[in-house]
Amino acid sequence: MRALFTLTTDFGLDDAYVGIMKGVILSLNPDAVIVDLCHSVAPQDISAAAYIISSAYAYFPPGTIHVVVVDPGVGSARRGIIVQMVGAIFVAPDNGVLSYVFDEASLTQEQTLLTPGEAAVYPPPTITVISNRSYWLPSVSQTFHGRDIFAPVAAHLSLGVPAAAFGEPASEVVLLPRFRPVRCPDGSLIGHVIHIDRFGNAITDVRSQDIGALDEQIEIEVKGQRIAGLSPYYAAGRGLLALVGSSDRVEIALADGNAAAALNLKRGDELIVRSRTAR
Amino acid sequence: MRALFTLTTDFGLDDAYVGIMKGVILSLNPDAVIVDLCHSVAPQDISAAAYIISSAYAYFPPGTIHVVVVDPGVGSARRGIIVQMVGAIFVAPDNGVLSYVFDEASLTQEQTLLTPGEAAVYPPPTITVISNRSYWLPSVSQTFHGRDIFAPVAAHLSLGVPAAAFGEPASEVVLLPRFRPVRCPDGSLIGHVIHIDRFGNAITDVRSQDIGALDEQIEIEVKGQRIAGLSPYYAAGRGLLALVGSSDRVEIALADGNAAAALNLKRGDELIVRSRTAR
Amino acid sequence: MRALFTLTTDFGLDDAYVGIMKGVILSLNPDAVIVDLCHSVAPQDISAAAYIISSAYAYFPPGTIHVVVVDPGVGSARRGIIVQMVGAIFVAPDNGVLSYVFDEASLTQEQTLLTPGEAAVYPPPTITVISNRSYWLPSVSQTFHGRDIFAPVAAHLSLGVPAAAFGEPASEVVLLPRFRPVRCPDGSLIGHVIHIDRFGNAITDVRSQDIGALDEQIEIEVKGQRIAGLSPYYAAGRGLLALVGSSDRVEIALADGNAAAALNLKRGDELIVRSRTAR
Repeated sequence: MRALFTLTTDFGLDDAYVGIMKGVILSLNPDAVIVDLCHSVAPQDISAAAYIISSAYAYFPPGTIHVVVVDPGVGSARRGIIVQMVGAIFVAPDNGVLSYVFDEASLTQEQTLLTPGEAAVYPPPTITVISNRSYWLPSVSQTFHGRDIFAPVAAHLSLGVPAAAFGEPASEVVLLPRFRPVRCPDGSLIGHVIHIDRFGNAITDVRSQDIGALDEQIEIEVKGQRIAGLSPYYAAGRGLLALVGSSDRVEIALADGNAAAALNLKRGDELIVRSRTAR
Repeated sequence: MRALFTLTTDFGLDDAYVGIMKGVILSLNPDAVIVDLCHSVAPQDISAAAYIISSAYAYFPPGTIHVVVVDPGVGSARRGIIVQMVGAIFVAPDNGVLSYVFDEASLTQEQTLLTPGEAAVYPPPTITVISNRSYWLPSVSQTFHGRDIFAPVAAHLSLGVPAAAFGEPASEVVLLPRFRPVRCPDGSLIGHVIHIDRFGNAITDVRSQDIGALDEQIEIEVKGQRIAGLSPYYAAGRGLLALVGSSDRVEIALADGNAAAALNLKRGDELIVRSRTAR
Repeated sequence: MRALFTLTTDFGLDDAYVGIMKGVILSLNPDAVIVDLCHSVAPQDISAAAYIISSAYAYFPPGTIHVVVVDPGVGSARRGIIVQMVGAIFVAPDNGVLSYVFDEASLTQEQTLLTPGEAAVYPPPTITVISNRSYWLPSVSQTFHGRDIFAPVAAHLSLGVPAAAFGEPASEVVLLPRFRPVRCPDGSLIGHVIHIDRFGNAITDVRSQDIGALDEQIEIEVKGQRIAGLSPYYAAGRGLLALVGSSDRVEIALADGNAAAALNLKRGDELIVRSRTAR
């Protein structure tokens, strides 16, 4: 049965681990189509994987099964979960790796709820704890649940097995401490770097809607540098730039350079967004 | 509709950008088959991507859609283009990244024209400027046209939308300054390194046909080192070797070693090919 | 004709070599499904590729064609081979890269033979030397047999061409000097590191069945460090751990760290497994 999967792991590409997961999926569903999202998540970096999957899943067709295996607790008591949302299914350890996904889902629901005169028809995500061993590989290692549990569960899901068959429903999941910008009394916003991409662009938790509340003329301060206004695109400026990037988040970039390297920017670093007129 | 795509980008594999492009293509054409050519092109290195795509496209079935996104000018006025050749379709920014492809196409046409008594039936490449927003994603970012423009345009092409629907025809494209060997009055040839591969082999712009014009006994000089004759294959010699590699170009190699590292070879470095008898 | 392939090479991902092989396969069999096992095998590291393919092939559906191209002797007299086993087909240079696969196949057969009262129905692997040029690309380079020989041979195999059509049968293949643990007179076992994975776990040639012969309370000594007992999983201990990993082999790991870096472990390093009561 034709079905689309994505894989996000910290397995790297120096071993066959990713290929083995694909072999398991294709053994169960020969018509699986499997897309790699990212396998170079830093080992056990749940937060990085959480950003990666949240930035990507919305661009896949409804029903795509997203398997995320960054799993420092593999073999311990941490649960595996299936999360079904409108348009996407996730299979992952319950360790916070779906935090940004849940964050976006809740935003969507809040927005739906706020539409006057309209009931919230958006069903909330449903969560299933993976416990029924009949859908796992017959022999389960203590170290590679991606192969032995998550891949076969995802494949069986794609074959039409309902989520409820895999285990009991749950109402809560582990969430990371959220990176959310903080609004100060003077109207300025304190945001955080949540991801550094390959080009050295520093992606932040400040969204375009957060900026909409400020004056059009904003100033961004990061690592003691001040950036006046937002550029429309990378090639539009010189030196240090800020712009709304492709994930609808404010990014710090350096024209023809690597902003993260130049400013020694790391995940978690703060930036301040303030109105230039208010100063 | 079954269709084959290749992707060549400088997005690296540390982010989900490549996977996101695949999600967009598969959302529009669920039967797409997508092959990665290379995503570790150095950031914004148009010339490297130009070599990569030119070395690979001829090995794919006719009708394959090759999407090349190395795009330092994303968001600026640079155009996006569709190029249709016999057997291959390209979707890319118009920044020179198809230079070597056009170079080979022109060689092919010259050769066809030179066949006596035969009309040139090889149609020249047709070029379409991408401008019709109906085939883009509804919301177009300023920073990720791979996702918002090139991927959906490629997917719509694969579904049978004719190139003319995407925009106006064009007669010229941006070409890189071409690396072509120079023939000296004494018959020797000055070539250039155009690519260093993973094994440290330095691939040059000297093709086997360029060497055919010289005596069979040739000498190659590079970085002050002289190499006598061509080796048939890597394992056939010791020390520094020259041979005609898999892309029909002269390569400099080091038996059991890394030629580029040993000689500090970089793209653009010159080599001299001369007859040993003529000296 | 729908067919599944895996690719394992030392081509890296900085060139289009892997993509080109896929283009050749898809040109001959448009319904090919191709999975990457690993392309970052260190250049010409036959032993590393031998481990990779042996750890992965059993997780793919029967009939999967595994193409392994780590080929320092490309262009020389080394042979190319097709190996057919129960459930898997391999296409590779005959340079030892299938050593661990043959090792496992022989284990399986020994086990089958040992079952009392049952004839060994497991047929031995059949080996075919690749020599019939009709199934190669028309023009064969001296440097890229992955593209010119192994990919088209694999594709023709997937289309139903019998192995015998590709060349003569052979009864022997090149095997690496095998890493096998040595049993000492005092009952202890001297094993070897055969692979370091991305997490710095050192995978050894000691299998769970080798340990079964010892007392339940074992001690492992490696690089002067002693590890008492086996941990059930990575997160179950602190400091240096030993456990039976996902490939059913003893691994040395460091809780929340990189064991290989901490102990300077390299492939070939020895470890001693002994009973703690016997000391």
